[in-house]
Amino acid sequence: MKHTISALASNRPGVLADMALMFKRHNLNIRSLAAGETENPDISRIVISLDGDSEEMERLTRELAAMDVVIQVDDLARREFVDRELLMVKVRMDRESLSQLMQIFEVFRASVVGMGQESITVEMAGDQERVEGLIKLLKPFGIKSLCRSGMIALKRGDD
Amino acid sequence: MKHTISALASNRPGVLADMALMFKRHNLNIRSLAAGETENPDISRIVISLDGDSEEMERLTRELAAMDVVIQVDDLARREFVDRELLMVKVRMDRESLSQLMQIFEVFRASVVGMGQESITVEMAGDQERVEGLIKLLKPFGIKSLCRSGMIALKRGDD
Repeated sequence: MKHTISALASNRPGVLADMALMFKRHNLNIRSLAAGETENPDISRIVISLDGDSEEMERLTRELAAMDVVIQVDDLARREFVDRELLMVKVRMDRESLSQLMQIFEVFRASVVGMGQESITVEMAGDQERVEGLIKLLKPFGIKSLCRSGMIALKRGDD
Repeated sequence: MKHTISALASNRPGVLADMALMFKRHNLNIRSLAAGETENPDISRIVISLDGDSEEMERLTRELAAMDVVIQVDDLARREFVDRELLMVKVRMDRESLSQLMQIFEVFRASVVGMGQESITVEMAGDQERVEGLIKLLKPFGIKSLCRSGMIALKRGDD
């Protein structure tokens, strides 16, 4: 089962390495990881999606929370979070397929960010379901290249 | 100086740990890292932003490219890439500030993804300049919470 964990940690060299080593020790494969700056330059937020059972996840969450550099750990399985991912995808395009593609982009509110002779590149932000929905619809046209940011998340409500 | 490197690597446990360890050995602080799936489930794309001089970067790029699991490394300083980042930000809001905020969101094409009693949460995808521009404009209102995906990038043109 896929789990997503969000951690706040000190922003200093080696923190990601220490975390990644812990995942390696547990032999967990990271599906996606997004580490970025927060409103406080000393603190970064790391959101990790990985496969594992609930027991493993609990052990991992405890281990993460026990790290010196880690300030807070949240399991995003709880529905208190808005989660989003950024997708960029370059898809094969010709005169016949262009109008179909534009319709799909409109439905998914994907924005065109580049156009070549035989391809078109769009970006879209959405939850995982929408990101995967768009990829599935574009596949028959021929995906030339694709990049996903990994999930990021913020708590719902005012906190 | 800030550099951004994009690598394609085998999608298996430990790859991120090995990379993160290399950055740690060079004592480089990672500003952001986005590791996500690609069109091929066996391959993941890892985009890393970090501070360092050009010499350090060249050494690092060579070392990365020499890793067994690494398929390709690109330095995104070359202008052949479209780069984008996803930002989610929760900003303090009251009746007086709401219309100002909505104007800012419109200019930056930021979409509202959540609303509380005294805060509003938006998402925006853009290049680094736009992401930082929006953060700067929202700061005076009071940022309650913020999450950035780290940069992702695709080559311009058809390749």
